Order: sequence, then structure tokens, then C-alpha cells
Amino acid sequence: MSDGSDYTPPKVWRWERQNGGRFASINRPLAGSTHEQALPLGTHPFQLYSRGTPNGIKVTVLFEELLALGKPAEYDAWMIDIGQGEQFGSGFVDLNPNSKIPALLDRSDPARPIRVFESGSILLHLAERFDAFLPAYQPMRAETLSWLMWQMGATPYLGGGFGHFYAYAPTKIEYAIDRFAMEVKRQLDVLDRRLAESEYLAGDEYTIADIAVWPWHGLLTTDGGYDSYVFLDVESYKHVRRWTHQIAGRPAVRRGRVVNKDLAERHAAGDIDALLCG
Amino acid sequence: MSDGSDYTPPKVWRWERQNGGRFASINRPLAGSTHEQALPLGTHPFQLYSRGTPNGIKVTVLFEELLALGKPAEYDAWMIDIGQGEQFGSGFVDLNPNSKIPALLDRSDPARPIRVFESGSILLHLAERFDAFLPAYQPMRAETLSWLMWQMGATPYLGGGFGHFYAYAPTKIEYAIDRFAMEVKRQLDVLDRRLAESEYLAGDEYTIADIAVWPWHGLLTTDGGYDSYVFLDVESYKHVRRWTHQIAGRPAVRRGRVVNKDLAERHAAGDIDALLCG
Repeated sequence: MSDGSDYTPPKVWRWERQNGGRFASINRPLAGSTHEQALPLGTHPFQLYSRGTPNGIKVTVLFEELLALGKPAEYDAWMIDIGQGEQFGSGFVDLNPNSKIPALLDRSDPARPIRVFESGSILLHLAERFDAFLPAYQPMRAETLSWLMWQMGATPYLGGGFGHFYAYAPTKIEYAIDRFAMEVKRQLDVLDRRLAESEYLAGDEYTIADIAVWPWHGLLTTDGGYDSYVFLDVESYKHVRRWTHQIAGRPAVRRGRVVNKDLAERHAAGDIDALLCG
Repeated sequence: MSDGSDYTPPKVWRWERQNGGRFASINRPLAGSTHEQALPLGTHPFQLYSRGTPNGIKVTVLFEELLALGKPAEYDAWMIDIGQGEQFGSGFVDLNPNSKIPALLDRSDPARPIRVFESGSILLHLAERFDAFLPAYQPMRAETLSWLMWQMGATPYLGGGFGHFYAYAPTKIEYAIDRFAMEVKRQLDVLDRRLAESEYLAGDEYTIADIAVWPWHGLLTTDGGYDSYVFLDVESYKHVRRWTHQIAGRPAVRRGRVVNKDLAERHAAGDIDALLCG
């Protein structure tokens, strides 16, 4: 493998399995299932198959926020072991043909089960179903959806770009680290300016846009994921940090962020209570 | 600059302006406007500030589809010259704090103008406003939104990842090209399997999910953007190609794809007629 300027790509790309750095074993150029594996099913209307990563946390935080509002959003949260390739099992692929967590099965109407994949789509689906955290009035609705979509398009540069090349790739490639560090700092500055003028991303209401961005750019400025706290100078984004701390203090956020992480599975409110207060 | 394994990142990242390859002059680690520049305003309810790139085409195709249905979706489409930094003008930044095209000003209710940014958000906004191309019934609605969100999260690996490192970066970095080529081929396979079983992405109806994916992965399999036709073996994705050709034949798609590209600005249906039929 060459990282220098003497490299010329082949005419046709070929899969060389030894490449890829950390997570190499689960990256493939093919979709579809690799083995038969049914998904477990609980008793609640919502079956979530996930993991306590930033994309997973978005959904468990929203579920806990909905429950805190008194909505009938009871859910079973199951852990998908991506290191073991469970996202390539036949049951998971039927639910999410893209083989990524989180994936949701909505059985609210048992006669018509609904699959929902992509964290942004799950947030939107639940917000619409329960009429919460997504204002119906304008311009707040458009503002919420714009920031939600911003997160979906921006975060690949943070996780799959910066995080990968700074923390996980087998060698440190200056050009790639520089490219993605610059973009992540631009994104943090976009948020910082917005949160200097507005309490929440969409305005004066907490919405699914905040829930989507918080585990990514938010926690980056307080926890410095990928060991980037100093490298990205995250302390300079003061308004993002103000907002991140504010959201971190919400009881539902404290509950949601432990699911499929410190707490492997969640099937009832008591599961979280036992962990947090036990 | 080093691309080899001897590189150690500095403690704190610093902006070195000479880096960046093509588009280096418009990549910055800062948000906000760089100069005062008002946006032009036309007479229609919708003012679109864009460019005929894949993300721009999504929106002009949807406008043309809505007009073809007889909806009152008349729009002025203005060209934003990103090479000249017009996306950093104060008027544009007020509309889209993320400084990317497309951005929409919706003045349907003159008393309450709405800004909408991110192409996925604009598609959703227009589909909701005109109740078209986004089914209200389940499971089609969830399926449409899941594939729409899939596009938003997947495409950064195609454009900002593969396209950048394969076509635009100043040197060819094998590891980065390999990483993103593998992911793009996986994405194409996800679509190919879906379109083998379904006429359109969400099912038997053409939706905003198709409109979002078509200019990216769709055209990649017929036109081979980034000169990748052979490298990615795009001919092997037969179902994606079937669907791409099918959509390319829609009159509204033929109209929408020339706007802000072959046709610099669009202010009336006749502007497109003159170009296509003149």
C-alpha cells in the first residue's frame, strides 16, 4: 500500500481485505445478509435494534423524552453486536437493508408493522407519531427539519472522515486529517454562531434537531471524542458547550444515553432506574 | 506535507491555507459571512439560490414535477457562483448559515417568510406544502423518509469522500481512495438489491426519495461521475441503471436538470422551453 504521490489507482477497483484499519472486518463493498439470524422480539409496540453510539443515543433519548411527556412510547431496546456482524444477519437486513444501527420496528398497529431505518428517519417518525419535539407551525418546523438534515449530511465528515483518519486509520495521513479537521471546525463554528443567538437550534424550543446534533458535535465539545479535545480546540466553541451542558442535564437525556451501552438492554423504565439510582 | 506513516499530527490543528486541492480556496474552518451581498429577489413565491450540481438538481426537479402536476409552485432559480464565494455573502448566510447550495426562501405567506436549507429539508418542505411525492399512508411514508435520510447520510462518502480523493485531491492516496470506493460500491449494492425488488425506492410510487438519490448514485451508474465509470464497474448495478434511465425519461426531470446549469437562471416555464425546444 502506498500513501505517497507515486500511487496510480488500478483501472478497476478490487477488494483487498487487508485494508481498512480498525473496523476493517465489518467494512464490505457488498450489501445483503451474510447469515440467517432472526431478531429478538419483546412485548412493546416499539422494537429498537441499536447500540449506544451517537446515532443510537439519538433514538433512546427521544424515547425517554416521549415517556417523560407521558406519551405511550414504551420500547424494547436490543443490543446489536456490530463487531460480531449481527447487522448482517437476515432479520436485521430485512429491517434495515443498509446494515447500520439504529433500526426500528414499529408495531403500534399490529396489522401493519413499519420498518424505519436511519437515525434521522426514526426521529422524524416518532416525532410525527406522537406530535412532539417537531413543531407544526412555521418557521419553526422548517428550521427544525433544516438542522436535522444538516446533522445527517454533516456528521459523516465528523465520524467517517475526521474520526476515522485521526483515530482509527492504520497510518496518520496528513492531508486527510487536515481536510476533515478543517471541515469539523467549520461545522462547530456554524453551530456556535447559531447557538450564540438562539437557545436551541431551531429557536426557543428543544426539538429533534437538538436531539440529533447533541451526541455528535455537542459531546465533542465537552468530551472531545477521538481524543481530539486539544487538537480541535473544542473549548473555543463556548455556545455549543453551553447548549451541550444544558441538554446533558435533562433527566431523559441522562436516561437515554445509558441504553445499549452501560445498560445492555432496556425493556422497562425500571431497568434504567436500577442502573442510575440503584 | 507528508502522506506517509512518519507523520505525527501537531498538538493543536492549525489552518494551513495552501492545503486542500481543488476547491481549496472555498474551504474554510470558519462559518459566517465574509462580505455584504444582498440576494436578488424575483416575483414568485419561491426563491431558490442554487447551482446545477446533484444537490441543486434535486430541488429543481421537484419544482418541475410539482408544476407538471398543476401545483402553484412557480419559482425563481438564481445561480450562486461558489467559485466567487457568493455562498459567503451576508444575504446567503442569513438564508443558510451553513453556506452551501441549495437554499430556499418560501414567501408563500408574505407576512411570514421561511428559510429552508439542506437539499433534503427543501424536498421535505415542498412535499409537505403541496402534499405530493411523500405518501401520507404507512408504511410508504416511513419507507420514503428512510431512503431520503439514507441519501443524506450516504452521499458525503460519495462526493466528499470518493469523489474528492479519486478526482480532486492534489495526490492520489491509496488508503483513502480504497476506503471510499469500497463504501460507494456497498451503497450501490444496497440500492441495486432494493431496486431489484421494487420499482422505486419506497415501493411502487415515485417519491422525494427517488428525486434525492437519482442525481447522485443514479447518474453515477449511467454517466460515471468523477471519471469512475470503469473503476467502480458501474455497469454491474443493473437495477440502479434500469431505474436511473426510467427517471431520466420523465419530462420534469429533463426540465429540472438543466436549471442553474445549461440555463443560468429560471424565472418562467418559457425559459426552459426555449432551451430544450428552441
